[in-house]
Amino acid sequence: MRLSLSRIEDAHKQISPEFLHSPQYGCEALGDLLGCSITLKVETLNPIRCFKGRGTEVALSRAMLDGNSAFVCASAGNLGQAVAYCSRARGVSATIVASRFANAEKLKRISDLGAELVLVNGDIELARETAREIAVSGPFLIEDSENLGTCEGAATIGLELTNRESDLFDIVLVALGGGALATGVGYVVRQRCPATKVVCVQPQGAPAMTYSWRAKRVVNTDSMDTIADGVAGRFPIPEVLNDLLEIADDAILVDETSIVRGMQLLYHHAGLIVEPSAALGVAALLENLEAFQGKRVATIICGSNVSPNDYQMWINTTNVAGDK
Amino acid sequence: MRLSLSRIEDAHKQISPEFLHSPQYGCEALGDLLGCSITLKVETLNPIRCFKGRGTEVALSRAMLDGNSAFVCASAGNLGQAVAYCSRARGVSATIVASRFANAEKLKRISDLGAELVLVNGDIELARETAREIAVSGPFLIEDSENLGTCEGAATIGLELTNRESDLFDIVLVALGGGALATGVGYVVRQRCPATKVVCVQPQGAPAMTYSWRAKRVVNTDSMDTIADGVAGRFPIPEVLNDLLEIADDAILVDETSIVRGMQLLYHHAGLIVEPSAALGVAALLENLEAFQGKRVATIICGSNVSPNDYQMWINTTNVAGDK
Repeated sequence: MRLSLSRIEDAHKQISPEFLHSPQYGCEALGDLLGCSITLKVETLNPIRCFKGRGTEVALSRAMLDGNSAFVCASAGNLGQAVAYCSRARGVSATIVASRFANAEKLKRISDLGAELVLVNGDIELARETAREIAVSGPFLIEDSENLGTCEGAATIGLELTNRESDLFDIVLVALGGGALATGVGYVVRQRCPATKVVCVQPQGAPAMTYSWRAKRVVNTDSMDTIADGVAGRFPIPEVLNDLLEIADDAILVDETSIVRGMQLLYHHAGLIVEPSAALGVAALLENLEAFQGKRVATIICGSNVSPNDYQMWINTTNVAGDK
Repeated sequence: MRLSLSRIEDAHKQISPEFLHSPQYGCEALGDLLGCSITLKVETLNPIRCFKGRGTEVALSRAMLDGNSAFVCASAGNLGQAVAYCSRARGVSATIVASRFANAEKLKRISDLGAELVLVNGDIELARETAREIAVSGPFLIEDSENLGTCEGAATIGLELTNRESDLFDIVLVALGGGALATGVGYVVRQRCPATKVVCVQPQGAPAMTYSWRAKRVVNTDSMDTIADGVAGRFPIPEVLNDLLEIADDAILVDETSIVRGMQLLYHHAGLIVEPSAALGVAALLENLEAFQGKRVATIICGSNVSPNDYQMWINTTNVAGDK
């Protein structure tokens, strides 16, 4: 296990206040509909509209103590915004490598934040390879989930989630992609609330980490097909899988229809605009209504970087909306 | 001046954590578009999706110290949810009086929270009159803005807004309805940051308090016509106007088109679903672009209780959307 509770507590102090103390509240309208008690931890109300700032604040702070002043990362768009934002705030340079097929809204925000954007003609895995190559010439590589700061920064969400005596959960649902969020939050929950189950949720269209967790060894996949770009990857990182094996109680795969339906429910009943990755928890509830019946569930709303056009299309897709 | 900074600091400690430390961050996408720096203080991510919980936490706590255990209020819908929520949490009873023409979404939430709902065949001013009549028989009347707890509770937003050294504002834009939010936040800003201007914003279709502030005496109006139901009223309260006269640097009226356009910009560029009242600050920016050019502006996003159907209509109204 690479993570440490005392380091995570220190990490919380290194993070700029606009990323901390995110809203955490019961959403009864949604809970009533799904037959359980739902607490939302909303990580979308900050300058980069996702949770990744917590991790990059910590990762950059640590790397700068070692004398680094230039950074590179691969990103589907959210980590890139976070590295760009935190680099600009510290007056250091950032290079973000992304797929040319990545979410255009996210790519624009990365450029607007002053980072150098390098686009590759392939998916996130080619971007990761390219970022590693660029790092050879000098810049410090922030490899999402592999870099401990990205995990321990994300883990500060878990500190806040478990800080209120009134909030006791049977289950915490965490989106699973590379693993920083799931291992970070899951680790703190496991340490502080041993009775709470940590359940990871991944799209069926990008299941590599879930397959790996189930097989207890790295399982790569050949392709991906999901609208949840923020959690899509094909090559799990062995060290992160090792952490996840100690932390997760279960890993669930959900289909694309449930993700869209989750976005619709969060729009109609919580007044939240979310990106597909942030609806994974609600999607898991929808596909397993009986299992969660009457439970006290928390889920992390991890990002809201959607293009308005895509979002309108998802919200207005009627073939998945049985309600309202 | 009825408000006191030390009482407001005490009030902050009386408020349940789910209403406190709301997100506060610079929204560059919106600021770039409007030519100024914009900090959003977002009060919509809590169990009642608006800022009113802060005030009712304080008002109920104070009234219960005096032995009250039943409450009544008139409401356009948001105060009613707040009184219902805080009453249920304290195991006391709540009666909410509302217009039968009030926002159906808000009325449903009030009932769901277990309060008794009384509907009157008139507007909010008839509801206020009816609530006063009900209070004669026993329940403690929470008159929004007149009750000091509602103002000093709302004022805790101002404490948080002015707490960060990095956040210095030239102007704070506050929605103006009955006056609790405007006097509360404005008072703290005036005390702590004398160089910052407090600018109130009200719809042209419900201008009574703005007319009163300009005339320095209560000016009632005969009718109202605005989609911003949360700030609509016709009979300003003299004590609240007195406070406002000491606090506000300006009071601006905005038209309905600007309110809708403000909602659209907050949707497209901040990823926020807001109710019309919460878009008043952005509407004021839109109507006065030159005056705010280059300024550091903060605005409070005070509520998100909209019906999805209304919201879709506003967001898709193209005759006011010049952008995107």
